[in-house]
Amino acid sequence: MERQIRTDLAVEARKLSQDTQGVDALPGVRAEERSQRGFHVTTVEILDGRGAEAIGKPCGRYITVELDGLMRREENAFSNAASLLAELLRGLVEFSAGSSFLIAGLGNRGITPDAVGPETVDHVLVTRHLKEKLPEDFAAFRPVSAVCSGVLGTTGMESGDLVRAVAEQLRPSAVFAVDALASREPGRLCRTVQIADTGIVPGSGVGNARKALNRETLGIPVIAIGVPTVVDAGTLALDLAQRSGAELDPSGFGDVGSMIVTPRDIDKNVRDISKLIGYAINLALHDGLDISDVDMLLS
Amino acid sequence: MERQIRTDLAVEARKLSQDTQGVDALPGVRAEERSQRGFHVTTVEILDGRGAEAIGKPCGRYITVELDGLMRREENAFSNAASLLAELLRGLVEFSAGSSFLIAGLGNRGITPDAVGPETVDHVLVTRHLKEKLPEDFAAFRPVSAVCSGVLGTTGMESGDLVRAVAEQLRPSAVFAVDALASREPGRLCRTVQIADTGIVPGSGVGNARKALNRETLGIPVIAIGVPTVVDAGTLALDLAQRSGAELDPSGFGDVGSMIVTPRDIDKNVRDISKLIGYAINLALHDGLDISDVDMLLS
Amino acid sequence: MERQIRTDLAVEARKLSQDTQGVDALPGVRAEERSQRGFHVTTVEILDGRGAEAIGKPCGRYITVELDGLMRREENAFSNAASLLAELLRGLVEFSAGSSFLIAGLGNRGITPDAVGPETVDHVLVTRHLKEKLPEDFAAFRPVSAVCSGVLGTTGMESGDLVRAVAEQLRPSAVFAVDALASREPGRLCRTVQIADTGIVPGSGVGNARKALNRETLGIPVIAIGVPTVVDAGTLALDLAQRSGAELDPSGFGDVGSMIVTPRDIDKNVRDISKLIGYAINLALHDGLDISDVDMLLS
Amino acid sequence: MERQIRTDLAVEARKLSQDTQGVDALPGVRAEERSQRGFHVTTVEILDGRGAEAIGKPCGRYITVELDGLMRREENAFSNAASLLAELLRGLVEFSAGSSFLIAGLGNRGITPDAVGPETVDHVLVTRHLKEKLPEDFAAFRPVSAVCSGVLGTTGMESGDLVRAVAEQLRPSAVFAVDALASREPGRLCRTVQIADTGIVPGSGVGNARKALNRETLGIPVIAIGVPTVVDAGTLALDLAQRSGAELDPSGFGDVGSMIVTPRDIDKNVRDISKLIGYAINLALHDGLDISDVDMLLS
Repeated sequence: MERQIRTDLAVEARKLSQDTQGVDALPGVRAEERSQRGFHVTTVEILDGRGAEAIGKPCGRYITVELDGLMRREENAFSNAASLLAELLRGLVEFSAGSSFLIAGLGNRGITPDAVGPETVDHVLVTRHLKEKLPEDFAAFRPVSAVCSGVLGTTGMESGDLVRAVAEQLRPSAVFAVDALASREPGRLCRTVQIADTGIVPGSGVGNARKALNRETLGIPVIAIGVPTVVDAGTLALDLAQRSGAELDPSGFGDVGSMIVTPRDIDKNVRDISKLIGYAINLALHDGLDISDVDMLLS
Repeated sequence: MERQIRTDLAVEARKLSQDTQGVDALPGVRAEERSQRGFHVTTVEILDGRGAEAIGKPCGRYITVELDGLMRREENAFSNAASLLAELLRGLVEFSAGSSFLIAGLGNRGITPDAVGPETVDHVLVTRHLKEKLPEDFAAFRPVSAVCSGVLGTTGMESGDLVRAVAEQLRPSAVFAVDALASREPGRLCRTVQIADTGIVPGSGVGNARKALNRETLGIPVIAIGVPTVVDAGTLALDLAQRSGAELDPSGFGDVGSMIVTPRDIDKNVRDISKLIGYAINLALHDGLDISDVDMLLS
Repeated sequence: MERQIRTDLAVEARKLSQDTQGVDALPGVRAEERSQRGFHVTTVEILDGRGAEAIGKPCGRYITVELDGLMRREENAFSNAASLLAELLRGLVEFSAGSSFLIAGLGNRGITPDAVGPETVDHVLVTRHLKEKLPEDFAAFRPVSAVCSGVLGTTGMESGDLVRAVAEQLRPSAVFAVDALASREPGRLCRTVQIADTGIVPGSGVGNARKALNRETLGIPVIAIGVPTVVDAGTLALDLAQRSGAELDPSGFGDVGSMIVTPRDIDKNVRDISKLIGYAINLALHDGLDISDVDMLLS
Repeated sequence: MERQIRTDLAVEARKLSQDTQGVDALPGVRAEERSQRGFHVTTVEILDGRGAEAIGKPCGRYITVELDGLMRREENAFSNAASLLAELLRGLVEFSAGSSFLIAGLGNRGITPDAVGPETVDHVLVTRHLKEKLPEDFAAFRPVSAVCSGVLGTTGMESGDLVRAVAEQLRPSAVFAVDALASREPGRLCRTVQIADTGIVPGSGVGNARKALNRETLGIPVIAIGVPTVVDAGTLALDLAQRSGAELDPSGFGDVGSMIVTPRDIDKNVRDISKLIGYAINLALHDGLDISDVDMLLS
């Protein structure tokens, strides 16, 4: 089996494909970079089948935000980053009078690098039941429900099956699915957020149509929010070898196939970025909230 | 508002109704007591509407097992109790070639007296996904999946809604719904298990048909497994007053309305009895297993 | 054995003793009530051996704050209550140039009503190591360390032994020992804080001099901060019987001896009041902090 | 700063030093390999200052056990491995009539690869308090106490300070200090145990005499038990580069300095090996126990 660089980020997959093909642009792919609220934002649009094949991902819009300022703990960085992500999320959703939303936290709360989804859900304002019981008090809020998909070994169900079951029961206008990703670059770990309007295949970057959460399987838009928390150790090894221009000695790679590379302080990183995403979702879905409102409502 | 004795146990509700009416038997109710594998077992059958009204519970069979021997840590008590509960559960279920089961852990893992459901699920052998992937290795097992309903405030969904969503997705032959109950007698706390073929109304002994998990709402049998873990402090107060033949001084009761009575070592009690119920479910659903097999498969 | 009303609160023990003796004042005891920052504050001073015997507690000052306004979620209630408790704590401590402090969280994190101590520690600003490493950045802070005593069954050591070991190693100027208490009145649960300059006997209201944490055993002041989270069910039963003027029927009490009465939403209550105490300790020990500073430093 | 291969394992450090110096033997170092109970066991003895300098570790005996059979889930592997480790531990300890022991779980329970120490303590039979209270029932057991050192940021104390405080209070005959380590080889992660009679410097392979837990600082033998759970990503990168004979391109390394390499299923690995070490300690310290006794006593 040929070893491959693995990444769940469209922005990295595009670069890989360009490098491999020795080109500056890929047919069927449009990319744009900009600075927004002080953060570097890249949009990769996969326009058609040629782009999808070149990048290995379904057609749609993938927006990547780099949060380095946040990690340097610049003043107002949390507030700015949450507002930026909220704006970007609003750009992918259509609101109408009866809009309602389901937030799906994918991944395993017991494995830190896989806990971004469940930990994000801890910071989401869940309002569906409150609007039903106290409709006047919560008139200003949209109905939001949340589900954590849990772990296959303890439910017997694929993550996608559980989220689909809940979506079919609740009939929300859209699903926001939050999951941990793998990236190629160690420097991106817990510092990048990818938002996509393409849905998500839980637990894997490779396609298995039956398990996907997307408009085809659910009948409603599925916004994927992902954070890279690991690099495959095999990817890191391959990458280092290529950068060094080294002849690969495959025998040295046997051990690392089942290993991951992750930040030393992964627990704090996951906690921080999960809070950021949760707050961004709240700001995106309810009009007129600010950070301190969310602080108070979640306390 | 008139204060009332609250209990989720049919065996206690029957006694209350008999005492109130001053009778030894209730129309539409049949009761039987016996000793089985060294434990005291009571079956209360509510046969018709008269019985349902007298006892305040839907028609069906309610089997109560008293586990005092277990709590005195008699030899083989765990094994005997698990085998007994497994036999009783098998008596409420029909097996056929393609039978499959969903175990629903109701209640809140974060509140010890309410954690019996989720903690039981931790001890259930979940096999559905294994049978799909390794059908030959798991030929001897029936497909079992599991779901914990979570907490309204964190999902926005009633427990019943989530379990119903999953049941509609997976189409099991039957659901086992495990929940904590309230009893009248402090001496029953964590020492009694009630099994019923009537389904369950999560979170409450009082009816709300829309929220129920039963054959009417799910279209399949729902076996309820409940353990009393609390006595309402108001019930305790009322009960003590009645036993003492005292004139009630209602002013003394104001404080206790939002209080519960629970064993001092509730955490260990809930852990132990949740394990017992999980093991009993495993023995009931898979042929030829014994306790040590379950130990090994869960480790 | 004669059944007795059990309480760890000096204010309740004084009232009990007065009622039993049929007097309005106890020799060797001075009490005073006042309103401070909108809260009801009672100080009971046990002045000598006569008072100590009457109340069953060592000589010293016991200050009780009733937090009902907090629980009704009045505006600024958290801030006012934290400021009040901080003032009261400061009144029991002497500060000098080199003052340092050890916060001891007593009790068992795994049992909700016993978790006030460990959960309070989660909200304490621990600064000792920071002052050592970055003395200039943390010049404005006093050195504070913290320890949770854990559970006898998992350490093999009494709580007091562990705290004493740490105190002897670190040589702080004073210890603040936080623990859950038992009260007589259900209405006080999680709504009252008792602060005392007498030290504490972990895990019990009854004396065992060897295990005590106080000036005699540690050689430094020990400030006890306690919150009632349970009423003994036996105490509740006895109390209700006495209030109803009933003849006691002791046979009805057998079941409740190992039971506790606790609020239905004990988990949220313990979380809230532990945060309050942690914040109060921070405001007491570091000059010039306000609530939002603590929010930021703990985030 | 020159990049270096980092390892906490004497067996790897010896090999590194031999390779660097191009020699087959190091002065002041004696090594021996053997098979014992089906496991590969290597003993490295650092005899004097020359050996200590060559290997970068204090004088003493370092025994490494490779547990590959365990990880392949061979029959009786757990029992064999626990018995082997117990034998090796007994070889480093002297027992007398009044021997007592303190087990110190170093590391941070909240960070999975650092949780080996605290999770091991969960499987240790703590008997000190039981022997005091029920001396006859526990006559066959030696007094064992346990402490988890917690995290600097939440205690304000170095791990070593807390363990030293407890050791000075309890005066055990010896301390067993359990900690997670870093290795060079990814293939060793969670598959190797190093036992040493040299004590330990918590949190680091590099020396800081004041913080060490050893005979010099505690006055009693300190047996270190360590399990490698991470490889520094910088070490992995350097190692791969060296193996490939590549010219190093240092610019490619900038990102990985704060990264670790760890098994994908680190949570299960840590859980399993912590249980193994806990059981081995129990078998070593109490005569005549077998695995099933420990199962029962811990349940």
